[in-house]
Amino acid sequence: MVQVMAPWIYDLSLDDTTFLMTSSFIIFTMQTGFGLLESGCVSLKNEVNIMVKNVADVVLGGLTYWIFGFGFSFGHGTYSNPFVAIGDFFLDYPIIYDPTEGPVFAAFLFQLSFATTATTIVSGAMAERCSFRAYCVFSFLNTIVYCVPAGWVWGEHGFLRKMGVVDIAGSGPVHLVGGTSAAVAAAMLGPRLGRYDLPRSLEPLSPGSPTNALMGLFMLWWGWLAFNSGSTFGTSGHKWKFSARAAVVTMLASFGGGVVGLSYSFLRRNRRFHVIDLINAVLGSLVSVTAGCYLYRPWEGLTIGAVGGTVACLMMPLWDRMRIDDPVGASSVHGCCGLWGLIAVGLFASDPQLLDTTRGESGLFHGGGWYLLGVQVLSAICYVTWSSLLTFILLWLIDKGIGLRMKPEEELLGADFVEHNILRPGAGLDRAFAALCDDFPLLCRSDAASLVGHNSGHELYLERMVAGRKEGVPPSRRSGDGEEESVALKIEDENGLPPA
Amino acid sequence: MVQVMAPWIYDLSLDDTTFLMTSSFIIFTMQTGFGLLESGCVSLKNEVNIMVKNVADVVLGGLTYWIFGFGFSFGHGTYSNPFVAIGDFFLDYPIIYDPTEGPVFAAFLFQLSFATTATTIVSGAMAERCSFRAYCVFSFLNTIVYCVPAGWVWGEHGFLRKMGVVDIAGSGPVHLVGGTSAAVAAAMLGPRLGRYDLPRSLEPLSPGSPTNALMGLFMLWWGWLAFNSGSTFGTSGHKWKFSARAAVVTMLASFGGGVVGLSYSFLRRNRRFHVIDLINAVLGSLVSVTAGCYLYRPWEGLTIGAVGGTVACLMMPLWDRMRIDDPVGASSVHGCCGLWGLIAVGLFASDPQLLDTTRGESGLFHGGGWYLLGVQVLSAICYVTWSSLLTFILLWLIDKGIGLRMKPEEELLGADFVEHNILRPGAGLDRAFAALCDDFPLLCRSDAASLVGHNSGHELYLERMVAGRKEGVPPSRRSGDGEEESVALKIEDENGLPPA
Amino acid sequence: MVQVMAPWIYDLSLDDTTFLMTSSFIIFTMQTGFGLLESGCVSLKNEVNIMVKNVADVVLGGLTYWIFGFGFSFGHGTYSNPFVAIGDFFLDYPIIYDPTEGPVFAAFLFQLSFATTATTIVSGAMAERCSFRAYCVFSFLNTIVYCVPAGWVWGEHGFLRKMGVVDIAGSGPVHLVGGTSAAVAAAMLGPRLGRYDLPRSLEPLSPGSPTNALMGLFMLWWGWLAFNSGSTFGTSGHKWKFSARAAVVTMLASFGGGVVGLSYSFLRRNRRFHVIDLINAVLGSLVSVTAGCYLYRPWEGLTIGAVGGTVACLMMPLWDRMRIDDPVGASSVHGCCGLWGLIAVGLFASDPQLLDTTRGESGLFHGGGWYLLGVQVLSAICYVTWSSLLTFILLWLIDKGIGLRMKPEEELLGADFVEHNILRPGAGLDRAFAALCDDFPLLCRSDAASLVGHNSGHELYLERMVAGRKEGVPPSRRSGDGEEESVALKIEDENGLPPA
Repeated sequence: MVQVMAPWIYDLSLDDTTFLMTSSFIIFTMQTGFGLLESGCVSLKNEVNIMVKNVADVVLGGLTYWIFGFGFSFGHGTYSNPFVAIGDFFLDYPIIYDPTEGPVFAAFLFQLSFATTATTIVSGAMAERCSFRAYCVFSFLNTIVYCVPAGWVWGEHGFLRKMGVVDIAGSGPVHLVGGTSAAVAAAMLGPRLGRYDLPRSLEPLSPGSPTNALMGLFMLWWGWLAFNSGSTFGTSGHKWKFSARAAVVTMLASFGGGVVGLSYSFLRRNRRFHVIDLINAVLGSLVSVTAGCYLYRPWEGLTIGAVGGTVACLMMPLWDRMRIDDPVGASSVHGCCGLWGLIAVGLFASDPQLLDTTRGESGLFHGGGWYLLGVQVLSAICYVTWSSLLTFILLWLIDKGIGLRMKPEEELLGADFVEHNILRPGAGLDRAFAALCDDFPLLCRSDAASLVGHNSGHELYLERMVAGRKEGVPPSRRSGDGEEESVALKIEDENGLPPA
Repeated sequence: MVQVMAPWIYDLSLDDTTFLMTSSFIIFTMQTGFGLLESGCVSLKNEVNIMVKNVADVVLGGLTYWIFGFGFSFGHGTYSNPFVAIGDFFLDYPIIYDPTEGPVFAAFLFQLSFATTATTIVSGAMAERCSFRAYCVFSFLNTIVYCVPAGWVWGEHGFLRKMGVVDIAGSGPVHLVGGTSAAVAAAMLGPRLGRYDLPRSLEPLSPGSPTNALMGLFMLWWGWLAFNSGSTFGTSGHKWKFSARAAVVTMLASFGGGVVGLSYSFLRRNRRFHVIDLINAVLGSLVSVTAGCYLYRPWEGLTIGAVGGTVACLMMPLWDRMRIDDPVGASSVHGCCGLWGLIAVGLFASDPQLLDTTRGESGLFHGGGWYLLGVQVLSAICYVTWSSLLTFILLWLIDKGIGLRMKPEEELLGADFVEHNILRPGAGLDRAFAALCDDFPLLCRSDAASLVGHNSGHELYLERMVAGRKEGVPPSRRSGDGEEESVALKIEDENGLPPA
Repeated sequence: MVQVMAPWIYDLSLDDTTFLMTSSFIIFTMQTGFGLLESGCVSLKNEVNIMVKNVADVVLGGLTYWIFGFGFSFGHGTYSNPFVAIGDFFLDYPIIYDPTEGPVFAAFLFQLSFATTATTIVSGAMAERCSFRAYCVFSFLNTIVYCVPAGWVWGEHGFLRKMGVVDIAGSGPVHLVGGTSAAVAAAMLGPRLGRYDLPRSLEPLSPGSPTNALMGLFMLWWGWLAFNSGSTFGTSGHKWKFSARAAVVTMLASFGGGVVGLSYSFLRRNRRFHVIDLINAVLGSLVSVTAGCYLYRPWEGLTIGAVGGTVACLMMPLWDRMRIDDPVGASSVHGCCGLWGLIAVGLFASDPQLLDTTRGESGLFHGGGWYLLGVQVLSAICYVTWSSLLTFILLWLIDKGIGLRMKPEEELLGADFVEHNILRPGAGLDRAFAALCDDFPLLCRSDAASLVGHNSGHELYLERMVAGRKEGVPPSRRSGDGEEESVALKIEDENGLPPA
């Protein structure tokens, strides 16, 4: 007997919920992964800013997902229509006996972990030049870009679902939508200053902290297992078998992508293995397998992943050729590989028989004909159209309102200093300070509290100690009355940062 | 029918145990989070030391939790009384058939993950000036501060439990107790040298590695989901529904705290977003929602979290005004927000009806009257009294015995070098070495093995190579007989570290 | 009634599979832990390289595990014999109804997480001098070293299993095999240049990033809980009770190892606590308890862990005395403690009675006589012989083929630059560049894209801005036509890196 996967939201057992919750906990760790990957990829003077943007994504994106995101995706109001669900805004269940309480909260948590992941994809593409305030507004509103297409494919009302589209863990609404947003955002922001004046401008800039970027890759990788496995929405009935298959096929895909990344870099980069190539090939393969993870046989996963890795590697320089400056390659990895992931379902998917995931359809290579492939392509067109249009409107409005891009002098000094008052020795700001401080004295003002890494209290204490020693007075431990006194605190770092 | 939550320790099914174990595995990752957060917040010359202190917390705090902590919290001996449980010390179950074996070990593991978390809260407040040996002794004994109040509320014997106190995941015994200890410890240690001589001494010092601190925030955030969700002690019966609710409400609370943190920083910090404000607002909101997580509706969680974030932000400078130097703000985040979390239960909690968590009581805003609120406040008074008293006694004894605080010259050189023989280029030790090395030649002695990051063998090899080239002798790969030879190894780092 | 643990692969229920999958997700995070630990232990100029090697381990080792590893361990072909299983290569299950589909995929995933862990142990021992290409080939083939002995003890065909060997989570096939490989690889590669010319050559070199190394320790620690707990292969029947015991005993063992590590370092290192001692003592204790985790009482786990920590600490300098240069101490931690772990089963194991893990046998101290101890020692001999022999053959072939060791000039410049085109300010390359660039101009060639951390586009923009200002021409945002123009990009880092 075929197990009906929908309407899943009312149909979660204890076992389903436990697995869904555990999966959610692990999926949220992908946020750490995205933060590290992105902050590892940008220059040191923007490293903290992008981490904070990831925090804002969770906070603001999560808040709007609760306010309207879940409601537009899965609401059950009377005005729901094939395009958008209406209802269940500000999700709330009173604490009285209600058989759906558990399932609804578990499903919301799981969807929330998806939503925050989806909205964070864009942050990397806007790195190093988007104003933090503008980003916060975008992060707050970005949920709308994700939640409507998520409803198309996963909501009971969705027109794509009704047409039989198959997207198990979101190559479409999560990755293709996010990647399209990323491309539009990167194009609208314009490239980083001087980006395409460099001699080899089709290569990505060197990542600021490759170790962190690789740590981020690892975290995303393991989180992805829960992302894809958990997307059976539990383990009851036959679901657990497909959950296990999903995890194995996902790993196989990443092996395919990894082999491609290593080979591509070796051949293209003069026998050197570039970190960005490898990271993006692996991530691209994971994105590609996401739509149909448990509908594939392992070797099919491997193949799909290998093609995905190739797509990620080959598309990276194309965006740069168009002078669309996407610092972490989100457009290629999530956009292009998300598209491939949707198509791959139309080619490789088998009808799982025990579940009704594909409504009895199969992909072209399994004798299913052109229908499924057609629907998948159609869904891709819908995602790209929606996402590019809405992202454009949102960013255009934000740009008119408060300005999207940092001022050139801010960009050159880096967002860490300008937005978060963080001065980091060794971040290479000497030249920028030298060139800009005469014209922008207010902007360049720093103080003891800005300089990270050193204990400024100790610096002051030592200065007084040395001065006191000359005068024969020992420095007392608590001599100061710092707040009234106007100490001319002078910080001369051994790495040559400018005095305050 | 109401599901009795106690005596839970004998009443765990297979499903309960599985969820409890999985939750424990995830809760332990919070230790990584605490380590990163704390080491990211201190200056670079103390970064490693605080990580090692977190390792010591697990090892020594865990050991004493096994020796006496679990026994004082949950022991079943005949001398157990409402104040302290007695029994089950050195927890041991022989490997013969015993129906309670599984539950007891699962419960112990879960409680152990709580205990190590509780004891590590204090480490941040003592950062940058507490001697490592003194900290180890404190870490070993600190379990006693946690385990007795944990028994009051969660043990069958506990007088607070019998009075009907509600604290699901430990705003009280974990956070308020830990935060109180933190404040007492910070006050007894005194501020870091020069801390309050700085011009803007009410602002926290700049974090040494903000990226690591934010990574720590993320890890704590996701770990907190398991912390609160797992505190249903399983999923059997109706528990799984509340487990799912706990996770959702916890996330909502963090959104409230995050929005407050962003807003507060923007308004107070001259339109810049300080990392510490944001981190502490989010953590404060998580602490606040912990006591009653599954007794709230989502918007109540949001509100409680927003208030918690406000408390965390506003209290930070107050401690500094009292010249209590708490480098990571543990007193505000865990202490003040823990207190608020206890009160919030008395205001917002609903009777879950299907579980007997509140014994039929509700909070003030849900028509439950003043009783619950009164008990919650009483419990807070008990926690603060116990924790401050006992922490004072412990630290006073340790101070008399082996001295609590590092010597000024040790503090200025940093614990990484003094305690762990680690010299890090760029950590800003030039001035300290210059000022101190004449007076403390032994302390300043460093060697090749101290300098992290560089391969000292290579330095030596290159030196010989260059020397040999001048004399026409190629350096052999294995020419050395290092141990007999007394090489005058000279390390001149490009960052200007002193020679050994 | 005794629950039969074998043939487990056909006998996994829904609950078993869920726990096995969740455990696998967590075990994979150990890969992040290994990467961080190893990259934290090496010098900064090799930090990225070792992370990439860990990625390659997953990709290439995982691929071969799918191709032949699982088949040699657990295959069910007709040619299976007590020495090696044959069958189930390229693991594939069509998507039709098949009752074993779920169990097989779950088991494969779990075994895969073990296999990638096993192969990554060797990477640390080969750090800082093994060519990346050679490592990739080794990583691809290394699966054979692991999968055959894994079959001896865990496969139905295995001769050690039939003799009654007990190794729950792999002190033998994972750690002793990996540690032996590590020792052989380190010996064959020879020590790092100048390693044993240093004055105190029996101490490990200072770790390049101790904070990362400690973060890695934490991640491995929590991952280990799932590693050992999950090795009951589920929770059905009585398994869940032993799963909980496994986690508790594992934690207790780590407390024992941690106390030893702190004490050893304090006594040996002139009252300073070295990070490497502490890390290796904790890891050594975890390795030691792995073989018999749920067959011990907690205090036995503590004892076994304390002995394991002692073994790890005492063996470290012995390898260095033999001039076998193992930068992270994998030979001691995994090899020597793995051996002790196997022996400990023969001494301390109790018959669990409800499971047939020990086939009714007990260890020497529980009245089981010498049989179990004998079998355990025999298995250790088999592992060491197999692993050393096969590793030697593999590495010898690779050395003949493409060369195993980096050239001296490559080693001195560091693998990050030579293999991944990464130049990191502060990594201490000045002296190496000065000494080598005349002789190896091609190798020393770097460019803007090599320098990590700084935005080279900004550098160029600022240069033009300053130049333009002198001539009165403002720099346009998109003035460049970078690719045709041959800009003489000059990067003078404040940390003194050489110009391109």
